[in-house]
Amino acid sequence: MAQAEPLNIVFALFPGVTHLDFTGPHQILCRLPGAKVTVACLDGGEIEADGLIFAHLPRLADVGACDVLIVPGGFGTTQAMAEPAFLAEIRRLAAGARYVCSVCTGSLVLGAAGLLKGRRAACHWAWRDQLSLFGAIPDPERVVRDGHVFTGGGVTAGIDFALTIAAEIAGEAVAQSIQLGVEYAPAPPFNAGRPETAPAEVLERVQRMYGKGMDERLAAAEKAGALL
Amino acid sequence: MAQAEPLNIVFALFPGVTHLDFTGPHQILCRLPGAKVTVACLDGGEIEADGLIFAHLPRLADVGACDVLIVPGGFGTTQAMAEPAFLAEIRRLAAGARYVCSVCTGSLVLGAAGLLKGRRAACHWAWRDQLSLFGAIPDPERVVRDGHVFTGGGVTAGIDFALTIAAEIAGEAVAQSIQLGVEYAPAPPFNAGRPETAPAEVLERVQRMYGKGMDERLAAAEKAGALL
Repeated sequence: MAQAEPLNIVFALFPGVTHLDFTGPHQILCRLPGAKVTVACLDGGEIEADGLIFAHLPRLADVGACDVLIVPGGFGTTQAMAEPAFLAEIRRLAAGARYVCSVCTGSLVLGAAGLLKGRRAACHWAWRDQLSLFGAIPDPERVVRDGHVFTGGGVTAGIDFALTIAAEIAGEAVAQSIQLGVEYAPAPPFNAGRPETAPAEVLERVQRMYGKGMDERLAAAEKAGALL
Repeated sequence: MAQAEPLNIVFALFPGVTHLDFTGPHQILCRLPGAKVTVACLDGGEIEADGLIFAHLPRLADVGACDVLIVPGGFGTTQAMAEPAFLAEIRRLAAGARYVCSVCTGSLVLGAAGLLKGRRAACHWAWRDQLSLFGAIPDPERVVRDGHVFTGGGVTAGIDFALTIAAEIAGEAVAQSIQLGVEYAPAPPFNAGRPETAPAEVLERVQRMYGKGMDERLAAAEKAGALL
């Protein structure tokens, strides 16, 4: 691979991103042979996420064409869906990419950018229905492929997504080697990771927590969808 | 919880850390009610990890007593085990902590600091045997508890570890709410996450990759173990 062109992978961050949405896939994909991974944001500089500060990020406008574009999610997707300059960069990078991807509510950003019309896509369970505002078809699977568009479900689904796209790009043996390297044989101590399996009071608690953000995001998604 | 003392959680980073070892648990534990999470390193400032730059980190010496100390792993543990100033800070923080924890090869650092004598501990599968050089008992479980010491296996085991300690601290319902929020219902596309389940050629490929680092780390662990 030393002589080959690098495989350019770009993560497009925004304020209010959930960091595990991209750090999970980043840790997988930075181990792909020949990969050059760039983590960028609209204005460059720093992005704070739940107290971690990611620094020295280039501006998205300074990032050239890429092979793989990945948009993570997070509470900030509500604002990202309403940021024309950010959506324009997403559209530009997506236009030249072999694979257009998202994790968690990053698919709402892809939708707001007009990139999911008629396509099946995954999303965090709590916000998945909003995909239909962009002409997308919400899919409850953890990792969804529709043509060159790969989308993952909520937060931790990014690891499953990343291993899936790693196999697509470099073959199963490479993806499995990375999986073994990060000892990805998950053993959750509880079976509460999906609304269908979580105890009722746990589901209610989480839905109550999302309450206000849910209304705001729905309004933002409706507005963005109306512009398409 | 608003009136209570915060729950102080400290992640102790070092150069060459594997970022998912701490970003996974960080994303879980920053959602614990009342938690104040600090990510620090010996000299403060910035730590680069596989191309991500974590900035504005305080110096470990400036971090007061904590309730939960977590040491992640990574290729840099070889150097961290041989850094007396770093090990001294780990010992100081551990002495006052309710819970002393590690993810991946972070348990080798705990061992080198003299904190695992006679204790069962987890570690990344490839390096687990080296725990015995510190008087620890290597345990192949994904998350191991021995008294107030909680250790996780390789990289992604940090998420299972974090949900386990979250339940210990705040109860199962809180841990399950966080699990649902990050949609942790893992579905690995392959069953190659453990040496016992990975295809033989995948295991050989990964072991070959570790080759040189294995010798260097073994030498470092023997030297650190002899000082205990």
